Amino acid sequence: MSAKYNVLLIGAGGVGTIVAFGIDYVGKSSLSIVVRRDYTKVKDAGYNIDSVDYGKIEGWKPDNIYPTVEASAAKGTEYDFVIITTKNLPDIVKVEELVEPAVTPGKTTIVLMQNGFDLGRPFFAKYPKNVILSGVSHIGSHNSNGTIHQTQKDKSLVSYFESPSLSKELQEAKAKEFIAIYANEKNNCTYFADAKWYRYRKLVYNATLNTTCALTGVDTGRLEFSGGLEAVSIPAMREVVAVAKADGVELPDDVINAVVHSDDGDWFEPSMRVDVKKGNPIELEVILGNLLKVAGELGVETPVLTVVYNLLKVVQFRLKENQGLINLPKERPITDKVYK
Amino acid sequence: MSAKYNVLLIGAGGVGTIVAFGIDYVGKSSLSIVVRRDYTKVKDAGYNIDSVDYGKIEGWKPDNIYPTVEASAAKGTEYDFVIITTKNLPDIVKVEELVEPAVTPGKTTIVLMQNGFDLGRPFFAKYPKNVILSGVSHIGSHNSNGTIHQTQKDKSLVSYFESPSLSKELQEAKAKEFIAIYANEKNNCTYFADAKWYRYRKLVYNATLNTTCALTGVDTGRLEFSGGLEAVSIPAMREVVAVAKADGVELPDDVINAVVHSDDGDWFEPSMRVDVKKGNPIELEVILGNLLKVAGELGVETPVLTVVYNLLKVVQFRLKENQGLINLPKERPITDKVYK
Repeated sequence: MSAKYNVLLIGAGGVGTIVAFGIDYVGKSSLSIVVRRDYTKVKDAGYNIDSVDYGKIEGWKPDNIYPTVEASAAKGTEYDFVIITTKNLPDIVKVEELVEPAVTPGKTTIVLMQNGFDLGRPFFAKYPKNVILSGVSHIGSHNSNGTIHQTQKDKSLVSYFESPSLSKELQEAKAKEFIAIYANEKNNCTYFADAKWYRYRKLVYNATLNTTCALTGVDTGRLEFSGGLEAVSIPAMREVVAVAKADGVELPDDVINAVVHSDDGDWFEPSMRVDVKKGNPIELEVILGNLLKVAGELGVETPVLTVVYNLLKVVQFRLKENQGLINLPKERPITDKVYK
Repeated sequence: MSAKYNVLLIGAGGVGTIVAFGIDYVGKSSLSIVVRRDYTKVKDAGYNIDSVDYGKIEGWKPDNIYPTVEASAAKGTEYDFVIITTKNLPDIVKVEELVEPAVTPGKTTIVLMQNGFDLGRPFFAKYPKNVILSGVSHIGSHNSNGTIHQTQKDKSLVSYFESPSLSKELQEAKAKEFIAIYANEKNNCTYFADAKWYRYRKLVYNATLNTTCALTGVDTGRLEFSGGLEAVSIPAMREVVAVAKADGVELPDDVINAVVHSDDGDWFEPSMRVDVKKGNPIELEVILGNLLKVAGELGVETPVLTVVYNLLKVVQFRLKENQGLINLPKERPITDKVYK
């Protein structure tokens, strides 16, 4: 038996479980997963999977199942890959801190299969000698009552967040190594050279349609018919394109039109809108906050995106309070601040 | 018996009924009211009123009760005053058209006891020879199950929207005439010379705190503690102050601070926020739409207010759809528009 890669996946929900199953299917890895909420259930009975890629599987388990990242590191395993498939909410949990127990400096490749933009930055600061990969997954999969329903094929693009201190060759090699342990004849996982370009391309949708729908409580169709698309989202898209350009990324001339028409025919509710509806915190900071940080550094004006961001921060405050993450006194405290 | 004024009040809900009762209490008018939704009930049993100003009254009725404005005009009565106390939603019902059957050109004084800004404009266009009064009411009163509960004293300021074609003397005289048929020892109704100044002063709150709370789903306390007050509402207030200034209205230096601290100690939910929560259409056009029209005419930049307005238009679309005022097909129509 050949030496296997030690792989840890954190966040085994709808998407993460299919990624984990794909890696297990390839068979080159000793696979561990961290399952927080459903730990006991999964430890006992494994996963039931109903997958458009892999068919119906009952009671699937990886090699190891842990309730926490700390537990996954307790035996001293040095992981070759740590894959993160959690929601990305740095204003609640900083992923670079969460994974720390499982990361061996200079060895572990960290794979961020998460939404958001400029995700490498906090990892470069904390793990300057580790490769940070970008995985953009197009998959439809959700966990309902312990069964994973994968309804859309697993198609993912893997590349790397360009580290200021590592060679391109090393980073590209690690990206391809990851693809080798994950890609199989059932899924579709390919190398895509330019993570930055791709993440900007996604932002043209996510920083604009996703955010305005979240704020106004509509789907992208109603956003169009109410006039909000043209009055707010399109100007916001132009701001994203301008930031990309200032950052050296040239998006296609027709990108705005392509993004708008990508939902043609569907009254589609984007992810942030769904999160607000369900009362879940939104991935505001990694989608819009990080973009505005870069825009500020590059001196690009983003008047529309800035107002949308500041309004959504209030929404996020409300969502966090509803989840018990913020506690306010019964009586409103009076501030003596003088406003001008 | 001396000749009485013919007075019609449209919109006898929580506020309107107390205004009507006050006019009846003074006794100088033959009072008619238009009650749409509760017509049969009010016609049969009158109003039960539990009032901080007037005490408990059972089965109060004015001289005439009509189900529609048309009905109120059917006998050919020439009204001296038509008082409008409805919600102000010109994107659903244009008040200047609604009242037309009851208005005698050159005779009827129209009293707008409604929220909003620059409300005179459509009336001047349609009724150039009629005086249009502004009534700003500070009252807490609501209608629950046919009983009017007035919890805050009726304090109102009456003046006139300055008509381009009528003398100031006439307009001021009509304002004072209206006060004479309404003010009594139980309420507090006074003349206030400058309707424009006063409406701008109210906008510093209503165009900013009211709107951002409506968009984000919080009260003014949470708006402050989440950072939205300083990031969005205060810059928006500065825009209101700038429009006022360009329009010849100098608001006090400390107006922003006074407005913010007006809710001190309360987790207060402004009216638009309450409307969104209840699923009722919001008074967006008369509060923010009219202000932005004036800002545009005066060439004042309003980048924050404009984004807030355009987002709230989407919310209004959703609220109208939920009330059956907008109907969309089951399948989203595909537009062939090219977006850039």
